[in-house]
Amino acid sequence: MNKGRLEAFSDGVLAIVITIMVLELKVPVEASFAGLIPSLPLLLGYALSFVYVAIYWNNHHHLLTLASRVTPGVMWANMHLLFWLTLTPFVTEWMGKQSFQPEPIMAYGAVFSLCALAYHILQWQIGITTAHPERFKQAFGRDLKGVVSPVLYLMAIGLAYVSPYLSYGLFLLVALLWIIPDKRLVAVFEASDDGKHDV
Amino acid sequence: MNKGRLEAFSDGVLAIVITIMVLELKVPVEASFAGLIPSLPLLLGYALSFVYVAIYWNNHHHLLTLASRVTPGVMWANMHLLFWLTLTPFVTEWMGKQSFQPEPIMAYGAVFSLCALAYHILQWQIGITTAHPERFKQAFGRDLKGVVSPVLYLMAIGLAYVSPYLSYGLFLLVALLWIIPDKRLVAVFEASDDGKHDV
Amino acid sequence: MNKGRLEAFSDGVLAIVITIMVLELKVPVEASFAGLIPSLPLLLGYALSFVYVAIYWNNHHHLLTLASRVTPGVMWANMHLLFWLTLTPFVTEWMGKQSFQPEPIMAYGAVFSLCALAYHILQWQIGITTAHPERFKQAFGRDLKGVVSPVLYLMAIGLAYVSPYLSYGLFLLVALLWIIPDKRLVAVFEASDDGKHDV
Amino acid sequence: MNKGRLEAFSDGVLAIVITIMVLELKVPVEASFAGLIPSLPLLLGYALSFVYVAIYWNNHHHLLTLASRVTPGVMWANMHLLFWLTLTPFVTEWMGKQSFQPEPIMAYGAVFSLCALAYHILQWQIGITTAHPERFKQAFGRDLKGVVSPVLYLMAIGLAYVSPYLSYGLFLLVALLWIIPDKRLVAVFEASDDGKHDV
Repeated sequence: MNKGRLEAFSDGVLAIVITIMVLELKVPVEASFAGLIPSLPLLLGYALSFVYVAIYWNNHHHLLTLASRVTPGVMWANMHLLFWLTLTPFVTEWMGKQSFQPEPIMAYGAVFSLCALAYHILQWQIGITTAHPERFKQAFGRDLKGVVSPVLYLMAIGLAYVSPYLSYGLFLLVALLWIIPDKRLVAVFEASDDGKHDV
Repeated sequence: MNKGRLEAFSDGVLAIVITIMVLELKVPVEASFAGLIPSLPLLLGYALSFVYVAIYWNNHHHLLTLASRVTPGVMWANMHLLFWLTLTPFVTEWMGKQSFQPEPIMAYGAVFSLCALAYHILQWQIGITTAHPERFKQAFGRDLKGVVSPVLYLMAIGLAYVSPYLSYGLFLLVALLWIIPDKRLVAVFEASDDGKHDV
Repeated sequence: MNKGRLEAFSDGVLAIVITIMVLELKVPVEASFAGLIPSLPLLLGYALSFVYVAIYWNNHHHLLTLASRVTPGVMWANMHLLFWLTLTPFVTEWMGKQSFQPEPIMAYGAVFSLCALAYHILQWQIGITTAHPERFKQAFGRDLKGVVSPVLYLMAIGLAYVSPYLSYGLFLLVALLWIIPDKRLVAVFEASDDGKHDV
Repeated sequence: MNKGRLEAFSDGVLAIVITIMVLELKVPVEASFAGLIPSLPLLLGYALSFVYVAIYWNNHHHLLTLASRVTPGVMWANMHLLFWLTLTPFVTEWMGKQSFQPEPIMAYGAVFSLCALAYHILQWQIGITTAHPERFKQAFGRDLKGVVSPVLYLMAIGLAYVSPYLSYGLFLLVALLWIIPDKRLVAVFEASDDGKHDV
């Protein structure tokens, strides 16, 4: 199977997921700035989910460069990941409309935990079929962020009843962890980039 | 006509079909998990339709690799298939919102039967214009799944009044049939893959 | 400017236009087939618009193959065409929800007339910049359909008060005119295709 | 990172942003042309935003042709730009539904100002990583439009309480400034185009 078409399809789904969330932002029924206040929690949730989906898009791209063959296992692991990502607008809207109440926040954390799990399954499927096992191990082997993130997600879910803002802070922390460029990863890709442009 | 642009357009439509279904999931008006219960049938229907559209995307890709020319017949057979696939969010929402009542389930089965029929018309149009008739016959000739699926669809439609859950089970069975990799198909594509990367 | 990116962007917009129309089909609030009856006019309108957008996609593709350079004129003529095409879901919904009353049908005809006009402006812009003026003239010179279609649109608009069904029939006739493969066009592209695969 | 995939993802998001705005146009509940009148301000706002997003798409394309590497800085500057662009349907709808009242117009101007700022950050990130610093400086150095636009935006925001129509006129003026082809830019790209087709 053609890897390019799998990437294009995933990009399409992610572009729609990241964009349709804005359809949930209902415009104020009045013409004053005060009318925007009820939309603020939803906007805050939207910004967080936007960053998360952007991180998934970014990581997905790096991961796919090391996929040598699109086996049925890779194809369905990818679809499984997309399935959970398509549910993120739903939990984002629920969390935002309920102004960060505990249970919607727990649902938000649960869906993103399932995205993270699905991402690891995809990584595992690509790892067993890649033609570059050393580069793959080097890039994804000591996956500290991949271990820390689910721990932080679980903490965020568990602490939702204590303080929803603490949970939101933990979600933000996970996002920041992933935005900061991973020097090890960059090194691997730049090394493999010698002599050819456009990975 | 350029095959690549036909594939890209089809991918775009399928990516939107698979994603917009989530817009139908209305978030609970309360902040408790109990509020999610009314959304469960719709979520179950969404998961089933997601898998179906993913299967169509996968099969569409394999089929198109053997299309040598995009004749007007192939172009319109493809549009016809996309038309019925765009109606799947509509029947999914109806089935889910009515909690698997018989008539919405029958409509669901009918639209997916029409998708299957449209897929066979596309397969036939590609078959008569392919430059690789032997490979095409080998890959799609003894099409057991293609015969079994409509029979199961018709059974699901017929049994909807007896038990909607039985119908849902039959739809699930069709999906499982298609998810399990088709060793014969894989063999054909791998054979034709010798010596060149990226089909 | 890169022609490929202009095509990809246009494909993306057309794929969304053709798909989001289905979001307007509101599912019945009851679980019986009778509940589908109020949706029928909208479904009929959707089918017609789907075919129209598919025709535009098809013609757009052929036209762009003869564009040698993406000048600002071509770029904005293309955006202008996309603008009117994005308004087609709006008039389709209005026509369908009002069950083919005269004025919504006239609005439907007007928007598609503006699409046709925008298409001709794009064709003119590509014609004056193409590197293959003879092939362009041969393919688009004696543009019988392009002359007949606006006449039929105007008739459909004018007759909407006499009989909405007659107007719908005329819209259907225009669609059929374009679906039937244009042998002259095919000949031009096949002639230019000698010796190279993939136009 | 692959520049092509960043472009494709951005194109996808922009195509959705430009198209979903039409979902906000609620069809009249009556069948007469008079029913369209309440939709006119929204339609006017939609047309303006459509032109703005088209300009961003166009400029984004030119800018990316000079990006040599997709560094994390370029990747996140691009996502940041997409974030503000995804909020444009929200402010467009608010401005249109409130028939150009001062505060929604100020919000509209603020979101597009943030888009402009995000665009400059992206330009700066690409500028420090480009392999063609002279061509980059030549194309984007004396950026008169880039200086005039934010001034006009700020004037539009400031004058919203004086006259909303003046603000709308200023937004229109910015759009016209950008639609008129930039001869200097065209010269740079055509010069760099000698000897190779398809930038």
